[in-house]
Amino acid sequence: MAVLSANKIKFIRSLSQKKFREEHGLFIAEGEKIVQEALNSGYNVKEVFYEKEIGSEAMGRITCLNSPSPVLAVIEKPDFTPDSILESISSKENSSGRKPLYLALDGVKDPGNLGTIIRIADWFGIDAIFASPGSVEVYNPKVVQATMGAIFRKQVIYTDLAQVCEKFLAAGLPVYGTFLDGKNLYENLPADKKQGLIVMGSESFGISPQLEAIISNKLLIPPYPANSVTSESLNVAIATAIICAEFRR
Amino acid sequence: MAVLSANKIKFIRSLSQKKFREEHGLFIAEGEKIVQEALNSGYNVKEVFYEKEIGSEAMGRITCLNSPSPVLAVIEKPDFTPDSILESISSKENSSGRKPLYLALDGVKDPGNLGTIIRIADWFGIDAIFASPGSVEVYNPKVVQATMGAIFRKQVIYTDLAQVCEKFLAAGLPVYGTFLDGKNLYENLPADKKQGLIVMGSESFGISPQLEAIISNKLLIPPYPANSVTSESLNVAIATAIICAEFRR
Repeated sequence: MAVLSANKIKFIRSLSQKKFREEHGLFIAEGEKIVQEALNSGYNVKEVFYEKEIGSEAMGRITCLNSPSPVLAVIEKPDFTPDSILESISSKENSSGRKPLYLALDGVKDPGNLGTIIRIADWFGIDAIFASPGSVEVYNPKVVQATMGAIFRKQVIYTDLAQVCEKFLAAGLPVYGTFLDGKNLYENLPADKKQGLIVMGSESFGISPQLEAIISNKLLIPPYPANSVTSESLNVAIATAIICAEFRR
Repeated sequence: MAVLSANKIKFIRSLSQKKFREEHGLFIAEGEKIVQEALNSGYNVKEVFYEKEIGSEAMGRITCLNSPSPVLAVIEKPDFTPDSILESISSKENSSGRKPLYLALDGVKDPGNLGTIIRIADWFGIDAIFASPGSVEVYNPKVVQATMGAIFRKQVIYTDLAQVCEKFLAAGLPVYGTFLDGKNLYENLPADKKQGLIVMGSESFGISPQLEAIISNKLLIPPYPANSVTSESLNVAIATAIICAEFRR
């Protein structure tokens, strides 16, 4: 059985903190499926630790999760250029005939929500995800976990969302957002041009007033029956799923 | 400032465990919104503790959450009769013209998923939720939390799901489930009769073979583009949301 030095354990453990992920340009992924997806992706997997090789006690010390997985990988953060993504926005369908569709997350704080949204974006062929600088970091171990591997296929770009919205409008693409006074989602999307940017608000505050002022198309996910008393809102990941499904159906 | 006795604190803390919730017929709800919903509901709220009255140290000791809320309520479990719900299933619209639509959860284990599904069920006017006995308990504090108060409006009935499915079929109502070899959700619901029972599988194993054999209508939530390589599945709460939205649109 391989032995991990105390320093090594300390180093891996440090990557559960954003500060050290940024310092070293590394992050952690745990679980058989996710590590396998990492190995199959273009990401640079620096090291993989298997419980059967280092023992359960060592795994228990390096895990970022409540209960350790049989495998943990240390992965290099990718070096992609957000600007090129933003510059490439166009109202044209891409070469495979896919309509351009992007998400913008305005202060999503919960790691499980961000991870789930990345998984949704992967399922529905969203081109990229923009996130306000105040959103939870994509390399947070709980985010990575919740993506179930979709993190290796979808990019999250942290940038000023007002500028992103303006870019879309300038390219002739609509900017959507959900509001309680919005229009029925099912009746207000153009049948043949379901494309553009979808802004989703934070768990606590929804979409910020600054962005609301820029949004060109306000939508509502109607409850059932239409005027029933219900919870005031849907979880942000749930709302994202329903909207993406409607754009992509 | 009121002082909580050590025995009282111990008692409240014990309710974080299913065993003691069952012994005492009580459960805990935390957070201003959820406690307010409890007080506005027909539920019997036995006691409410406010941080401003008992102090943050005492709140920290009685909370079931990672970070305590400013308010915590001890609530009596409702005494409803599952049999009457099952007996009342009918293919007829109810008095308000709502189509009968129910959910069945086949071994959903994650508290956040169950709570989120209850919130979805509330939003989309689902009549009731059936859950297999192996599903996570609805009074688990993390479930209560994730419902954001919807738990006080939607009943979860733990019972044998095969029997539930048979009851629906006998009443002339279809039983739906999602499978990778199912038919496109968007093209296979009857336009004017979107009703019945929707079975959702567990996070790890999907729908059990026993139930699969009973399900009358197999559905698929298509990814975009239709044959793209994506994550193999959507989270169960996400899939529930997309399906409920489609039934209720």
